[in-house]
Amino acid sequence: MTKMKKATLIIKNIGQLITMAGPAPRTGAQMSDLGLIENGGIAVSGEEILFVGESEKIEGQAELAEGCTVIDAKGMVVTPGFIDPHTHPVFSKTREKEFEMRIQGKTYMEIAESGGGIRSSVRDLRETDFATLKEKTKERLDRFLSYGVTTIEAKSGYGLSLESELKQLEVINELNKTHILDLIPTFLGAHEVPDEYRSDREAYINIIINEMIPAVTKNNLAEFSDIFTEEGVFTIAESKKIQQTAKDAGLKLKFHADELQSTGGGELAAELGSVSADHLVYISDDGIEAMAKSKTVAVLLPGTTFSLSGKQYAPARKMIDEGVIVALSTDCNPGSSCSESLPIIISLAALQLKMTAAEAITAVTVNAAAAVDRIGKIGQLVEGMQADITIWDMGDYRELPYHYGVNLVSQVVKKGKLAISN
Amino acid sequence: MTKMKKATLIIKNIGQLITMAGPAPRTGAQMSDLGLIENGGIAVSGEEILFVGESEKIEGQAELAEGCTVIDAKGMVVTPGFIDPHTHPVFSKTREKEFEMRIQGKTYMEIAESGGGIRSSVRDLRETDFATLKEKTKERLDRFLSYGVTTIEAKSGYGLSLESELKQLEVINELNKTHILDLIPTFLGAHEVPDEYRSDREAYINIIINEMIPAVTKNNLAEFSDIFTEEGVFTIAESKKIQQTAKDAGLKLKFHADELQSTGGGELAAELGSVSADHLVYISDDGIEAMAKSKTVAVLLPGTTFSLSGKQYAPARKMIDEGVIVALSTDCNPGSSCSESLPIIISLAALQLKMTAAEAITAVTVNAAAAVDRIGKIGQLVEGMQADITIWDMGDYRELPYHYGVNLVSQVVKKGKLAISN
Repeated sequence: MTKMKKATLIIKNIGQLITMAGPAPRTGAQMSDLGLIENGGIAVSGEEILFVGESEKIEGQAELAEGCTVIDAKGMVVTPGFIDPHTHPVFSKTREKEFEMRIQGKTYMEIAESGGGIRSSVRDLRETDFATLKEKTKERLDRFLSYGVTTIEAKSGYGLSLESELKQLEVINELNKTHILDLIPTFLGAHEVPDEYRSDREAYINIIINEMIPAVTKNNLAEFSDIFTEEGVFTIAESKKIQQTAKDAGLKLKFHADELQSTGGGELAAELGSVSADHLVYISDDGIEAMAKSKTVAVLLPGTTFSLSGKQYAPARKMIDEGVIVALSTDCNPGSSCSESLPIIISLAALQLKMTAAEAITAVTVNAAAAVDRIGKIGQLVEGMQADITIWDMGDYRELPYHYGVNLVSQVVKKGKLAISN
Repeated sequence: MTKMKKATLIIKNIGQLITMAGPAPRTGAQMSDLGLIENGGIAVSGEEILFVGESEKIEGQAELAEGCTVIDAKGMVVTPGFIDPHTHPVFSKTREKEFEMRIQGKTYMEIAESGGGIRSSVRDLRETDFATLKEKTKERLDRFLSYGVTTIEAKSGYGLSLESELKQLEVINELNKTHILDLIPTFLGAHEVPDEYRSDREAYINIIINEMIPAVTKNNLAEFSDIFTEEGVFTIAESKKIQQTAKDAGLKLKFHADELQSTGGGELAAELGSVSADHLVYISDDGIEAMAKSKTVAVLLPGTTFSLSGKQYAPARKMIDEGVIVALSTDCNPGSSCSESLPIIISLAALQLKMTAAEAITAVTVNAAAAVDRIGKIGQLVEGMQADITIWDMGDYRELPYHYGVNLVSQVVKKGKLAISN
């Protein structure tokens, strides 16, 4: 703590202060260590955490600035602001009719023939103007924030043309400047081969490599490059070629891997030093072993399996037991998982992935920070880190998965400012 | 419409006005008929609905009172206020540690031995004073309201002694007077045999029959009598005896039936003319046939199966196809289903029970009204009925199950008054 800085915001008398102080990221049994302080207190100066410890020690450690905001969190739980490391939030049209068709047993082909599927989101994205996209996306950011999230990773991938991919990334970058939430932009031109290149996929791959990646990096529009590596989408060889190009151009990597079948995406992500590999419902034992040896974070998306009425969920327990760094995310998108709520994902992580409340909280804080390469900056409540804090209206952190489908957020502090107060 | 009455609240330009006008309750294909009016409007006078129809016709049909509240619901969905026909909301302590033990694979016995299970809620209820119970329950009512619910059925059943059962019912009746939500009280003294009568269950049944039911009816504390009919709890013969006594004393009936195995609870409910039979996960074909021939409503609780990581859900499609009146509920309780959100139940009804959005909305409006014997009063937006109305921030009603785990309520009108405005 620097003696010069004065506290501009204090949270005192916190029933359970979950600091996540300690190893970052966490694996195995470490995922159960929340760095919990009972009757805790936090002092914030500007955008930064000044002091974290016992509530009664705040006054001895931090001098209060004039007009300092003081929050009494008696009987409440405080966590780092949650981080959602995998979202597709830039779209206009929702796809609820398709959801209902699936419930009624319609096949993927029947849905596609009725104009549904990812192609409908591509048409939507291309047809929708920048201002409308920005407004629709902003509503989603507000909803993320209201559920205790303070940072999201946000992907392109519904444009699938140079112009439309850039438009989507520009929406993300613009909202990162104007909205209180932090957005981390990811280029996902390799989300699918667009209709106009179905008969010449090589040509589309060349556009990604020769036009899109250079334009994205030149304009500094993305931090990550992601790809949908899957049978029928991009093969392992194509994925390697595209992602190596992205890496050489200075982008960090992410993968949609082993979502529908085991194709070796997890192994490839580990091999290329990818920051994360996501989905992993069908990851092989070799894939788990490769990821456990690497620093690549496994971002699990149980909401997607849930929302698609899937039978098989990612093998989370095996991954945790074998030492893979596990994070969780909503996968917020208009097709397979329309939700901005990490709390419902935590309930699903408990019920379907058999993760404890502590493991799930680790997976949306410090391990999610690792999945977006922000360790040491966010995801932990530690002196000097960014003051992103969520205050929960619950007496015990285990209530988070248990009290399902409702919003238990009391207040959200983003960069030291009170952003939500319910 | 009475010419004398002036509109005190108007909702105009409603994108999709879901009136539920028509048959009440609804079975089979009728459950898909929402009585939907595009660009609809509603006029309310005091606590009552004055006009329902096309938005442009409001002015010709209703004279506006001075200071009339006008809500523009352009691009939104409006439904009857939702009705939750099966809740256990009166408790103090949540049981999240038990939830986590289940996730970790602990057995029912291990949980019971560690002090968990329904017995812990009985201890809690007996030890907690009236004011605390009222305050804790009030918080839950506020949460129900925030998720678009305007009426709940509320059970006793954690007291299991004359004094404590009455205390619980008094909390419900007191909150029904002071809270804007309507509560419909149900006596559930036969929720379980309390510890002190484990070796003499006949004695406890006699207390229910000779002391509790008379005290409940004498003080007019409940409208319904419910019982947990299940192997190891109350047998069919015991259930028949207790419920016949309750019926003779003037109480309407409900049953917890066929939740854990097929014990013939559905059949017994139909035979005794019960208003509803609830759970029904293991209802037999004979039970479905008996219920289809009766007016007994099947109240399905998919959140309970979900929250217990159950593999088998109630056979909703079969029930609907065979003509059973189907309603949905949260089963809000501290053990097996801690949630006040009917929207997440609607998502589960879609994903697990394969009910469409229209069927699920029918199940929490007009059919839920049948489950609490309120047909013609609530659950439909029809002239002369109570003005309980929920306005949803969505363009199409099918978004309700699809956009899961978040709160899409914009405003709630209860008895003609704006109770929630997000």
